[in-house]
Parts: sequence; structure tokens; C-alpha cells
Amino acid sequence: MKQWNIYLSGEIHTDWRQQIEQGCKALPVVFTSPVTVHELSDAAGDHLGHAEDPFWRDHQSSKVNAIRTQTLIQNCDLAIVRFGDKYKQWNAAFDAGQCAALGKPYVTLHDDSIIHPLKEVDAMAFAWAKTTSDIIKIIEYVVKQ
Amino acid sequence: MKQWNIYLSGEIHTDWRQQIEQGCKALPVVFTSPVTVHELSDAAGDHLGHAEDPFWRDHQSSKVNAIRTQTLIQNCDLAIVRFGDKYKQWNAAFDAGQCAALGKPYVTLHDDSIIHPLKEVDAMAFAWAKTTSDIIKIIEYVVKQ
Amino acid sequence: MKQWNIYLSGEIHTDWRQQIEQGCKALPVVFTSPVTVHELSDAAGDHLGHAEDPFWRDHQSSKVNAIRTQTLIQNCDLAIVRFGDKYKQWNAAFDAGQCAALGKPYVTLHDDSIIHPLKEVDAMAFAWAKTTSDIIKIIEYVVKQ
Amino acid sequence: MKQWNIYLSGEIHTDWRQQIEQGCKALPVVFTSPVTVHELSDAAGDHLGHAEDPFWRDHQSSKVNAIRTQTLIQNCDLAIVRFGDKYKQWNAAFDAGQCAALGKPYVTLHDDSIIHPLKEVDAMAFAWAKTTSDIIKIIEYVVKQ
Amino acid sequence: MKQWNIYLSGEIHTDWRQQIEQGCKALPVVFTSPVTVHELSDAAGDHLGHAEDPFWRDHQSSKVNAIRTQTLIQNCDLAIVRFGDKYKQWNAAFDAGQCAALGKPYVTLHDDSIIHPLKEVDAMAFAWAKTTSDIIKIIEYVVKQ
Amino acid sequence: MKQWNIYLSGEIHTDWRQQIEQGCKALPVVFTSPVTVHELSDAAGDHLGHAEDPFWRDHQSSKVNAIRTQTLIQNCDLAIVRFGDKYKQWNAAFDAGQCAALGKPYVTLHDDSIIHPLKEVDAMAFAWAKTTSDIIKIIEYVVKQ
Amino acid sequence: MKQWNIYLSGEIHTDWRQQIEQGCKALPVVFTSPVTVHELSDAAGDHLGHAEDPFWRDHQSSKVNAIRTQTLIQNCDLAIVRFGDKYKQWNAAFDAGQCAALGKPYVTLHDDSIIHPLKEVDAMAFAWAKTTSDIIKIIEYVVKQ
Amino acid sequence: MKQWNIYLSGEIHTDWRQQIEQGCKALPVVFTSPVTVHELSDAAGDHLGHAEDPFWRDHQSSKVNAIRTQTLIQNCDLAIVRFGDKYKQWNAAFDAGQCAALGKPYVTLHDDSIIHPLKEVDAMAFAWAKTTSDIIKIIEYVVKQ
Repeated sequence: MKQWNIYLSGEIHTDWRQQIEQGCKALPVVFTSPVTVHELSDAAGDHLGHAEDPFWRDHQSSKVNAIRTQTLIQNCDLAIVRFGDKYKQWNAAFDAGQCAALGKPYVTLHDDSIIHPLKEVDAMAFAWAKTTSDIIKIIEYVVKQ
Repeated sequence: MKQWNIYLSGEIHTDWRQQIEQGCKALPVVFTSPVTVHELSDAAGDHLGHAEDPFWRDHQSSKVNAIRTQTLIQNCDLAIVRFGDKYKQWNAAFDAGQCAALGKPYVTLHDDSIIHPLKEVDAMAFAWAKTTSDIIKIIEYVVKQ
Repeated sequence: MKQWNIYLSGEIHTDWRQQIEQGCKALPVVFTSPVTVHELSDAAGDHLGHAEDPFWRDHQSSKVNAIRTQTLIQNCDLAIVRFGDKYKQWNAAFDAGQCAALGKPYVTLHDDSIIHPLKEVDAMAFAWAKTTSDIIKIIEYVVKQ
Repeated sequence: MKQWNIYLSGEIHTDWRQQIEQGCKALPVVFTSPVTVHELSDAAGDHLGHAEDPFWRDHQSSKVNAIRTQTLIQNCDLAIVRFGDKYKQWNAAFDAGQCAALGKPYVTLHDDSIIHPLKEVDAMAFAWAKTTSDIIKIIEYVVKQ
Repeated sequence: MKQWNIYLSGEIHTDWRQQIEQGCKALPVVFTSPVTVHELSDAAGDHLGHAEDPFWRDHQSSKVNAIRTQTLIQNCDLAIVRFGDKYKQWNAAFDAGQCAALGKPYVTLHDDSIIHPLKEVDAMAFAWAKTTSDIIKIIEYVVKQ
Repeated sequence: MKQWNIYLSGEIHTDWRQQIEQGCKALPVVFTSPVTVHELSDAAGDHLGHAEDPFWRDHQSSKVNAIRTQTLIQNCDLAIVRFGDKYKQWNAAFDAGQCAALGKPYVTLHDDSIIHPLKEVDAMAFAWAKTTSDIIKIIEYVVKQ
Repeated sequence: MKQWNIYLSGEIHTDWRQQIEQGCKALPVVFTSPVTVHELSDAAGDHLGHAEDPFWRDHQSSKVNAIRTQTLIQNCDLAIVRFGDKYKQWNAAFDAGQCAALGKPYVTLHDDSIIHPLKEVDAMAFAWAKTTSDIIKIIEYVVKQ
Repeated sequence: MKQWNIYLSGEIHTDWRQQIEQGCKALPVVFTSPVTVHELSDAAGDHLGHAEDPFWRDHQSSKVNAIRTQTLIQNCDLAIVRFGDKYKQWNAAFDAGQCAALGKPYVTLHDDSIIHPLKEVDAMAFAWAKTTSDIIKIIEYVVKQ
């Protein structure tokens, strides 16, 4: 039986990942994610040397994070990309762009208040869902034998 | 002599594209862009049928736009991705993600006020510039014989 | 011992899949398929929102189905593509086209009454079989140690 | 200025190709097509040897045709795939499947009477148009500077 | 511990495969091969229909064999390609060409009497060996921890 | 108008290339070939250093030849692969294998006396022709507007 | 749980590999390496035939080593590339170049005395570390659930 | 007539590029190179912001250089990689590694005093030359009609 590898990209300030993981417990799926602890992620490269300039500090850490995220995206069968109502969330759109170019199906998860600014991202998505419960239904349907 | 094909992605509300094109007039470069007239872009698919639901209207138009943008991104040697100070601009981050996955070099163009939210996008960029004049210098340097 | 992954594409109104699976029980093969319950497949995206227009309803469901079918086709070693005597079955030809472009071997399964309209699809196939028993013989031969 | 290469796939019994070519005369586009003379296409391999069996005669000719069609599809920026109201037209769906797997944008052209059987093909299309005039508008929009 | 997947291509009239498999018994390797029983291989497609013309009979069988060989070549880490002193053995050179284009390392196994006609095949090989004992030494060396 | 790039692989001791080039004079095709002067080809690397051992002398020259042949094969739209009645001609089968793996259509050109040993090579070919006049007809048909 | 495959490239005269392996004992990682015994590596092809000329002897052995190293690099999720203070170490830079072209993340490990000559290699790296303890911290961070 | 695109990688302190360009004046070749003025290359990113830390200054400039070098390497048909007798020259080995992974033929140009440390780089090269005059002969031979 195929085990589906699903990457959960985007928002880290709510428990949407836990809800989906909980709802898919009985299914042959493995979930992966970026590191979702904000401070850890921002400091991922700090031990490699102190970078005075905030740009280079962020650069150093982001590239360490990219080792993880690029590998996990390349390994996944499906990505769920979550856009919440706070922050810029360009990393989520960036992940979606990678999926599109790699031919990886992805589903977006966001409110209808941001349909218009997400139209390019949604255009290449395989579905748009508004709730984690919808995502769980999609996964159930897609992976069933 | 190689003619460089440069895709200008992102912000459509300022004249940054014109500045770069003007500054590179004497160079062996061709610039391409998405359709940058906002209303045209939003209505790109309207003639194909009236979609009641705003999601499907956006969807229909965005996919017509994607015929153009995906082809031009796949054809480019280099992309310049501009993030302004307004709007969500997820399309710009989405284009950058596609470039990253396709192995296309891209340079970001943005103020230092948004270094932190753009850190994942900048991590895979080949340079970050703050002004169009910096972009012109990069292009001049890169394409010279 | 290599386990062969075989995708069974096409007709969903007869038991050809069951016959092949039954006949290959003793072999190191795993079979995958699209969702073959017609009503489930047509309604795959309905929970994501009511689409008034039949085109968008079909669109929404078909893309959810495509998450499954595109992934399974990309994962397979071999596809069997069945054309029955009813309906348009453009999805089967579409799957065959994907296999051809991805360099995945596929075998067609159809009567000799439709040789001529299937000539382009058969041209890129690795074999044409008329019965499930022929398909079973091909699989037996191909996967044996 | 980029010259767009557009492949016109499918129906050969009406003048839809001529209409599109006529309507795009002033645009930087080149159109390519399969050989559209039915008898020539069926006989494309006959000079290579007489094949008694109709299957092998079709096979021989279809592979000669495939030299042309596969090359032109791989060379195109965009494909227009036309489904008329006669015949099986599996070759059109097969071409669409190849485009999907190669990451080539394609637009379908068909009546709304066949939306449902074409749902898988339309799911991966970048647009669906009902008339050649709609296709011309899409091309005009996509290729404009 | 990585298990190496090694494809044994070419000559089927001597026991070179058995010698190598015997010599590598203790190593983390899996060997795959084409069907090596000549009559079975020649008849692989016969059950699909009687082809009067010898060309089409061979064609039908060879494509069934290609399902197996192309998949196994694409799955291998390393190929050993054996050229004996009888027959044309174009299939062995054909397999080597596929390996070269796919970036799969291959080692040739042949006497020094045929160095000159094999020079293009050897040029892209990662080694040339004269005996199965040399091949075993290469495999031992390559796969050891 | 597309200019077709056709690689002529194989036999160098008869004038089959000249016949095809002559017959296609009026067509939008460009032909490329390996270096076809036997002594030049064998000595292609001699100026790089004297290699005592015949294997290394051949190796050195064959790799210089491979710079040309691999590039031209990767650049072609179609290859014609000629097997004559003399010599081993493993290089021709090797080129065909490369085409198969790269998804390049190729046509074989050989007598019916060698159908059986060429069955694997012919299985992946898009056509088999017995005369240069047949090849010219195929090219004419394939490249016509 | 994903098992990460990490290739350790470069310097063979110090125990940096052992330090990293020791420090990552509790993590879901597998390490691979080239053959690190200098004399074995230099003699890897000697049994295939005596090559008088030192160039061809090296050539023969290096290609046998390349069977191992190219396969392991293509299989890895991440490479660590170590530059020590002795020898030319072009092989390490060569491995890094392969990783860059294959889209494999790699981290360099070297003193700050060689920052300048390694700038092109570091430009495409995902991190630069000065100590094995830094490398262990990166791996811990990247692979954690 | 095919125009060959040849990338000249490596040493910038002698006139080897000029010698080759001079010697190939009459041939259908175009040469490309990295920026070969040392100070310009080191300062390529300086206008983008002052980086206190020498690592980040080099990083910034090297990535600007990589826009040029990666694009030109991906565009070339053949690379000549020159190793002189001074400096570390890891960038040359890095370029060779990229060529190897991209399937681009490359030829090395170096003295026999450095055969041993370059053995891995030479193993994947299509030729090794000791003088620019040898390189010119290779190019003449390879590109001739």
C-alpha cells in the first residue's frame, strides 16, 4: 500500500497542522513540515558565526532552513499550503511556486477574504480549501485504495 | 553575441520596469513581463464565459495569465523579482519559487524594511538589490562580453 | 525482488481490473487505479464549495482526482490502459499521453473494432492486448525473475 | 520580440485552424499542426512495406506521423486542442496528455455539450474556449508585448 | 546500508551472469537481467496475435521485452554490458547507449579482440573488464562500506 | 518555418548520406553526422599524446569523437540510423540507444536480412526503411508544412 | 520517519568523518563516502590491466571510483564537502559542482583562511561551517521531526 | 551550419583564452567566459551594500558572478577547463563538476605535473590537452562539417 508523503507548508501560528495530522491518523500518510518554532527557525544558522548585518543573519539561517524545506518538498507527493490572516507569508507562496515548477500537486488552505491576491497561486493549485476538515476529506479521498 | 532574456516579475504600480529598460538600452538584453495593466490582467479570461463566483472568475483569468508568465519564466536567463510596499504580492514570491525550482537565477528588488519576511525568497536569490540603479549595474556586469 | 507498480487506467464499468488483479495474485506486483466509483469521482470536490456552473463543478472534482491519478501515474512502472465500447473515454487517452511523455511503458487493452481510432495511442504503446488474459500473460512474463 | 510557437491539435474535418491562423495574422506567432489530410496521414508509412494486418498498417503509419507530432509538441509554447462532434478523437486527448506531462500549457476548444467527458482533459488545461474567436483573443492577449 | 541494483545486459549463451552472481553472493547487491531464455524472448508477444510478417512478429515480442528491460535499466545503479564472440549483439550496444544518455554508469565485459569495434561504447563506459572475476572485483570495491 | 535537424548515424563505407542529402535538397532540413573519414576518426585524439596500448589510443580518440556525436545527437530532431552488411556497427546501435533514452525519434535503415538481430533497436524506432528513397519520402512527409 | 542520506565528500587525511558520524549516532541519518583509503583508491582499476602511462593508470582507477561517487552523490539528500589545509582537493570542488548542478544542497566545511579561493564553491552552498561540531548542529536541526 | 558555443573556464592570469580564440577565428564557434578581470570579479556585488565580514563580501560578489557563469555553462556545447600552476583554482574544478552533472562535454587543459590531483576531474572529461594548440586542433576537428 502506497504511503503518501504530504508536506505542510505555511502559517506557523495556529494549530492547523495538528488538526490535519489528527484527522488523518488512520490513513497511510506521512506528514512533513518546515521547522515551525519561530525562534529556532530564525536562529538556525546563528551558531555558524555572528552576522552583524540583519540581512546576512537572516540569509545564513534561511539557507539552513532551505536544506530541510527543499529536500522535503522534493520528496513529497502532495503539499498543503496554508495562508493565514497575518504576516506576509511570502515563504508559503514561494513553496507553492516550487511545487508548480516541480510538477508536485498542491492544495491551498485559506479564507475567501484573500481569494484575489492569491489568484496566481490558486491558478496552479489542484484545489482550494477553506477549512482543515476539507483538507482531511481531500486526503482521505485521494489516498484511499 | 548572446542576447540575455530577462523576466521582470512583481509590482505593477510603479515604473521600476521602465527605469530598468531605459538603463539597459544599450545592452544585448530583451525584457519580458507579465501583462502589467491591472484591469486587463483581472479580466483576461472574462470573454470565455461569465463566472458568477469571484473565485472562478479569478481562476479563469489567472490561468490565461499563466500561459504567458509560465512560458516567459521558462524562457528567461534571469528574473528580477520586485516587492513593493503595497499589497500581498504573493505572485512575485510564487514566480521566485518557480525560478528556484527551475534553476533560473533571480535577483530580488526591495527595501530593507522587508528583509525579514522575504528571507526565504532571498535565500535562494543570486542577489538582493535596493534600487533599480543597482539592478542595472548587475545586468551591465553580467552581460558584458 | 523488485515489486512492480502497475497503474490500471480507463474503463470503470466492467470488472477488467478485478480479472487482472485475480490473475496476478501470485506475482510481485502492486496495482493502483483512479477512484472507480463513478458518483464518488464526479463529486470529489463538492465539499469544497458549491459550483453553480457544471463546468466549474466538474473542474473542481477533476482536479481533486488529478492529485491521485497524476501521482500514481508518475509512480508506476507500467500502465494498462483500457478502452471499452461505451463513452468517450478521453481520460484513458489522456493518461496514455502522459505515460508516453514521461517515458512510462503502457499497454492498451481494447477490441479490434477500435484499432483505427486508437492508432496514435497504440503507436506509442509497448503492446496491444485484446483480453485480460493476454494482459496477465504479459505481466507474468515481464516481472518474472 | 518573442515569436510564439503554437501547436494546433485535433479535429481535421472543419476549418478551425484556418480561422485561427487568419485571426492571428498580425501577431508574432507560428502555427504548427499534424498532417491534416486524412488519407495522407493514414498512408504515411505505406511505402515502407505492405502490412497485411490492418493493425500493423495503422501502426506503421502512426509512428511516421508521431515523428512529426511529437517533435512539434515538444517544440511548442502553447497547444490548442480541438474536440469536434464527430469521431473518437483519442489522438487529441493523447496530445493533451503529452502537453500536461511536459508542462506545456494547452487550451481546449469544444462545445459545452462535451464538458463532462472532457473533465479530466480540461482539469489540466489553462483555459477552455468555445469558439475560435475566443482562442484568437487568448492568443492576442498572451503574446502581446 | 545501500543495496546496489546492477543490471546484467547482453550475451545470453554463456554463464557469465551466474559467475558474477555467485561471486557477489555476500554483497549488498541485487541483480536484474532481461529474459535470458532465447525462445521465450523471441515469442514474448506471440499470444497477442499471429503476425505473418517476421518483422512484425519480432516487433511485437521486442516491445514486450522492452517493458522489462527499459524499466530495469532505469531502475539500476550500474549496468554490466557483456559482448561475447557470437552474433551481432546490437541489443547490448543499444542498452549501453541508453545508460550513457541516462547518466547510468556501465562497465563493459569483452575480450581484447573486439576493442576497436567497441571503442565508442567503451568511450562512455566507466570501466572495461576482460573477465567475470574482474567484474566481481569492481563490484566488491564499489559497494563496500 | 521550422528547420529540421536530422542526424545521420552509422555506416560510413557507402554513399547513403549523400543520397539522402541530395534527395532532400529542397526541404527545410539540416543534416549532421559523425566524422565519416575512417582514418581521421581513428586518429582524432592522437595529437594529445601517444598511447602505447591500443585500448587507450582508441579510448582517447573515441572520446574526442564523442564531443561531436553526443552534442549533435542531443541537438537533433530526428536521427536516421544505418546498419550496413559489414562490420560490427555497435556505434550505430549505441547511438540508437541514446536516442531512445533521450526521447528523440529515430528511423532505422537496413536490409531485411538483419531484422532479427536488430529487433530491440527496431522496437523503439519510429520506422524501419529499406532504402534511402524510403527515408527521403519519410523526411518529405514529416517536414512538410 | 524520513532517513536522511548524507554524503561526506573531500579530505581523507583527518578523522572529520568519524567525528560527524559519532555526533549524529542518535539521528535518522545514513552517511556515505568515497573510498577513503588512499592507496586502495589509487589502485581501484589496477586489476583491469597494467597501464604504463601514469595518466591512463589514474584514469582507469578514477573511473572505477566514479561509479561509486557519482551514484552516492545522486542518491544523497545533502552533501558535506570538506576542504583541509593540504593538497589540491580538486575532487572536493568537483563534487560540489555536481551537487550544485543536480540541485542537491551541500554545506562546506573549511577554515576561514581559505574563504577567498572557495568563494565560488561557497556561493552555491547552503551553509559554511568551520567545525565538525557546527556540522553536527546543522544536521540535528535539519533532520529533526 | 551549427555554431558551437564553447565556454572557457578557469585560469585568468595567462593569455590562454586569447590564443584559443585567435586559433579558432575561422571556425563557426562562439566563446564565452567568466569575467576575467580579477578586481572586477571580486567587487561584482560591492555596489549592493557594504559587507563588513570578508565572507559575506565574497559571497555577495560570487553570486553575482554565478548569474553569469551558471547561465553560460548551461548554454554551452563544450567547456574547456584550464588549470594553471598557481592558486587553488577550485572554481575551475567546480565548473567541471557542473558540466559533468549536466552532461556537457568538457576538455581539461593542464600540465602533466598535476595529473594525479586532477584525476577525478579528468575521469569525466572527454579529453585532456597540454597546450592551447591541442585544444584548437580538438575544436577544429569537432566542429568541422
